[in-house]
Amino acid sequence: MAHFTKSDINDLDRLIRLSLVNSITGYKPANLIGTVNGDGLTNLAIISSVVHMGSDPATLGFFMRPMVTERHTMENIQETGFYTINHVHETIAEKAHFTSADFSREESEFDMCQLQAEFKDGFAAPYVSESRVQIGMQLAEKMDISLNKTILVIGYVEHIYIQDAGYPAPGVVDLNAVGTICISGLDTYHNVSKIATFPYARPNNIPEF
Amino acid sequence: MAHFTKSDINDLDRLIRLSLVNSITGYKPANLIGTVNGDGLTNLAIISSVVHMGSDPATLGFFMRPMVTERHTMENIQETGFYTINHVHETIAEKAHFTSADFSREESEFDMCQLQAEFKDGFAAPYVSESRVQIGMQLAEKMDISLNKTILVIGYVEHIYIQDAGYPAPGVVDLNAVGTICISGLDTYHNVSKIATFPYARPNNIPEF
Repeated sequence: MAHFTKSDINDLDRLIRLSLVNSITGYKPANLIGTVNGDGLTNLAIISSVVHMGSDPATLGFFMRPMVTERHTMENIQETGFYTINHVHETIAEKAHFTSADFSREESEFDMCQLQAEFKDGFAAPYVSESRVQIGMQLAEKMDISLNKTILVIGYVEHIYIQDAGYPAPGVVDLNAVGTICISGLDTYHNVSKIATFPYARPNNIPEF
Repeated sequence: MAHFTKSDINDLDRLIRLSLVNSITGYKPANLIGTVNGDGLTNLAIISSVVHMGSDPATLGFFMRPMVTERHTMENIQETGFYTINHVHETIAEKAHFTSADFSREESEFDMCQLQAEFKDGFAAPYVSESRVQIGMQLAEKMDISLNKTILVIGYVEHIYIQDAGYPAPGVVDLNAVGTICISGLDTYHNVSKIATFPYARPNNIPEF
């Protein structure tokens, strides 16, 4: 096995360390965060850190670094209080990836990467029209993580849209059917196919492995 | 498209809401958190919320709900200051899933689910011997999220072990090669296969989509 101690990791070339440490958590969800500012200028950013935080009320979080290209996203969320989370599938993977380029404030990633902004049901932030799972979010809290200057953005789910194929039965979301993909590291995109669904685990239903 | 408003989501049956909201973030990494208490009693918990927080120093986070089966994990981490994160592959997926059963304090999930605890290189917490990517972590900070009573556990990476096939070149982690899998919702496990790696995005290298 390859083995890296903390000191080995510290001594790595910066880009090698970035790639290694960004890869070791496993597969990450591929989502686009859509926002707009008070002047109607839209913004779109690929984010691989969206995480479930609670179901009642439905609460999701994601992490941002404030001083990188994502800063327009954070500014817009604070200005309007709303944002969208949109799943990425294979057809839009390359466009989604290139939203991470450091475009100027006046260049919307929707335009630069040829994705369609969709406003609907009176919601303040733009969805990605091509996405097959779209979530409208209201900012709940912005937590500064002093340890390493990241920000945890916590929001409440206001709307969920799922293409019909992705919602075959109540509570059952079939992400394979809508082609949602995942990310490893900083730059690699993957298709996903189901192995198995296992029953709710209780001490008295442990299988014979 | 299926459409749920906030009020629709509130009105759902509790289990349907749990399944829906746990599914909408996209694919989640499948990791086992290994711990031990001061009496040498080990614990193992499947966690789908591990997230990259920083690379210099290497910092990872995960979310816990304090009053559920994961509480032994949190108690052990606070008692010893150390834990491990271990990737799940298809062969151990079912065993990993059943670590979520509410076993008593005296029953180690390693034993109950037939996974092998591995202590090495003087590290205080047990790795999952079967895992092909193993990470030794030191607790850095425990942040209480007052909004919904979850806990963000932040730690520093002390050791990384990757089976050789998973580390083909400096900084390149091939999670497909070591069979790391991912999770959707509460109970569904998936295999993963690479689509593409895209170059670092700059405003001047946007492709003709």
